[in-house]
Amino acid sequence: KNYKITLLPGDGIGPEIMKVAVAVLQAIAPKYDITFAFETALVGGAAIDATGHPLPDATLQLCQNSDAVLLAAVGGEKWDTMPSNLRPEQALLGLRGGMGLFANLRPAQILPQLIDASTLKREVVEGVDILVVRELTGGIYFGKPKGIVADENGVRRGFNTMVYTEPEIDRIARVGFEAAQKRRGSVCSVDKSNVLEVSQLWRERVTSIASDYADVKLSHMYVDNAAMQIIRNPKQFDVILTSNLFGDILSDAAAMLTGSIGMLPSASLGEAGKPGLFEPVHGSAPDIAGKDLANPLAQVLSAAMMLRYAFNEGEAANAIEAAVNKVLDAGKRTGDIMADGCERLGCIAMGEALLAA
Amino acid sequence: KNYKITLLPGDGIGPEIMKVAVAVLQAIAPKYDITFAFETALVGGAAIDATGHPLPDATLQLCQNSDAVLLAAVGGEKWDTMPSNLRPEQALLGLRGGMGLFANLRPAQILPQLIDASTLKREVVEGVDILVVRELTGGIYFGKPKGIVADENGVRRGFNTMVYTEPEIDRIARVGFEAAQKRRGSVCSVDKSNVLEVSQLWRERVTSIASDYADVKLSHMYVDNAAMQIIRNPKQFDVILTSNLFGDILSDAAAMLTGSIGMLPSASLGEAGKPGLFEPVHGSAPDIAGKDLANPLAQVLSAAMMLRYAFNEGEAANAIEAAVNKVLDAGKRTGDIMADGCERLGCIAMGEALLAA
Ligand SMILES: CC(C)[C@H](C(=O)O)[C@@H](O)C(=O)O
Ligand SMILES: CC(C)[C@H](C(=O)O)[C@@H](O)C(=O)O
Repeated sequence: KNYKITLLPGDGIGPEIMKVAVAVLQAIAPKYDITFAFETALVGGAAIDATGHPLPDATLQLCQNSDAVLLAAVGGEKWDTMPSNLRPEQALLGLRGGMGLFANLRPAQILPQLIDASTLKREVVEGVDILVVRELTGGIYFGKPKGIVADENGVRRGFNTMVYTEPEIDRIARVGFEAAQKRRGSVCSVDKSNVLEVSQLWRERVTSIASDYADVKLSHMYVDNAAMQIIRNPKQFDVILTSNLFGDILSDAAAMLTGSIGMLPSASLGEAGKPGLFEPVHGSAPDIAGKDLANPLAQVLSAAMMLRYAFNEGEAANAIEAAVNKVLDAGKRTGDIMADGCERLGCIAMGEALLAA
Repeated sequence: KNYKITLLPGDGIGPEIMKVAVAVLQAIAPKYDITFAFETALVGGAAIDATGHPLPDATLQLCQNSDAVLLAAVGGEKWDTMPSNLRPEQALLGLRGGMGLFANLRPAQILPQLIDASTLKREVVEGVDILVVRELTGGIYFGKPKGIVADENGVRRGFNTMVYTEPEIDRIARVGFEAAQKRRGSVCSVDKSNVLEVSQLWRERVTSIASDYADVKLSHMYVDNAAMQIIRNPKQFDVILTSNLFGDILSDAAAMLTGSIGMLPSASLGEAGKPGLFEPVHGSAPDIAGKDLANPLAQVLSAAMMLRYAFNEGEAANAIEAAVNKVLDAGKRTGDIMADGCERLGCIAMGEALLAA
């Protein structure tokens, strides 16, 4: 089996951590009788510098024609003064829209080795294992009309539209319920249906789709309460199913429970048979870029997620995750997850430790 | 000085905690040479039961014609099956819109006596003192167009509009900057300007208004990052200035840092000279209603906020806050904030302890 993978290293620490992930994939390949054909493309600030656009057509086409995309991170101060439609982050929206990546899976799992990195008390976060299923190509991120317009007196108003159709809700709901079937069997759908019509339709459709998944327990929660409950008692959650904007906010809050977002991978998936995109939750960390200080583990775990979700190579994915665990058990840490009594490694040395493991 | 106050006890524990707040106000009045004229009106589920509508015209008019409004809480399972435009919560939106309450001030302050109630580590939350300034009559809560419509094939779409005009942004920004001047002098404006046009206008106007407040330090943060930072390092925040929906979510997250939302008051203010509305952050807690178990302290602290913000009676407000502190120092607690070695009181006994203090 040969898999065609587009690599998008992007900006900041992106290239360093991507190098580690590729080395790990290459090391694992022969053991599972698979081969990878890697192609690297420009994205984000690096693409702006080279072509003037954060997501060149050539990049999007390459992604659409590959079996999966592995992205590192985009953005940095250097491009913060660009007009907003030409910022590095626009590449993410362009990839999501252009590849039809409507389902974003963001796990927030407390690793026992890193539990002290959390700002929450041990007893509150121990065992937390949340999967946020975020709708990624609809809602207020893509809704129209939108813009900034002036009235007859020159007074401006800015506006965006939060919108969902029934089919958009139905398909992400199915992703949520199916994920729950493979986990602990419960879905908490988060909306703001006490105020928003779009949320009323959301709640109605999610409730209706639930009848196809009798083995899954469905509950509903308002988004403000969900933000509280993630802090008050995060163990109550299995799958959180929610819209694009709410998922953006809540997945970051859930990720921060772990205290180590340098460890968290994510998957963005489209229709069956279409390529998915895999990337760490953290950003491009321009302040530490090129200094061999970055934590490559979220990138490596994103590669494992790719093996599992895109290629159904669950054993190869397990092997990578086991290597990460082994390295952590041995007390090896990058600076961001450093703790008393552990050994501090740079990005390159962490990669070597993974290969050895 | 005589102040005309409309009392809106509402549902659940509302009437019990309101009784305590009124008793405290009456006890304090002669000491500061003030008198109160209280009138009680129907709101929420109680109003639905009596009149069929959660916010009867008579209630809104009474509120508009008083010097301030003290609200307890609305809602309960009993009314959850009502059509959404007739639910108890609609009364809140009706009061905010009808009274022009565009500025919502939600303090989240860690009380030293209750620090162990937080799910976060002591060193993370010790000294946290955040004021969320939330815009309350604009944004996606009130934006039009909105609705649920079907296309020619009967496929429905739900939509809402997130919209701000320049004057709406300017006036809430001023509230934020002025609050910061009386606090620690810094404002963090939260938006999603990397994706939303409405946020781009928000950021532009807030930045422009900041030039009138040279003594205040302004920073900007994306809402997803803000949700993370509230968990990662809440001490970095003084005033968080944000829109209606983001403020709904972030103020609840910030409140939960304290671990004791039964303690948190809030103020909703309109144009100068118009009556404000004061209410606890917590809900109507129907499960414990009528059992003398409720914590009246947030309601009492809301009354103190009313004295300070609506009537400029800072000393009387201080006296109430001092009494609350004294009672907590003496180890008196309601069930929700109970801790080892403390004395558990019911709602009525807590009220008596306050009067004694
Ligand atoms: C960079 C930004 C456009 C993006 C988003 O809001 O979706 C990011 O925050 C994320 O969550 O992937
Ligand atoms: C009940 C609801 C309409 C309300 C809101 O969303 O504003 C509440 O959550 C609040 O924050 O006061």
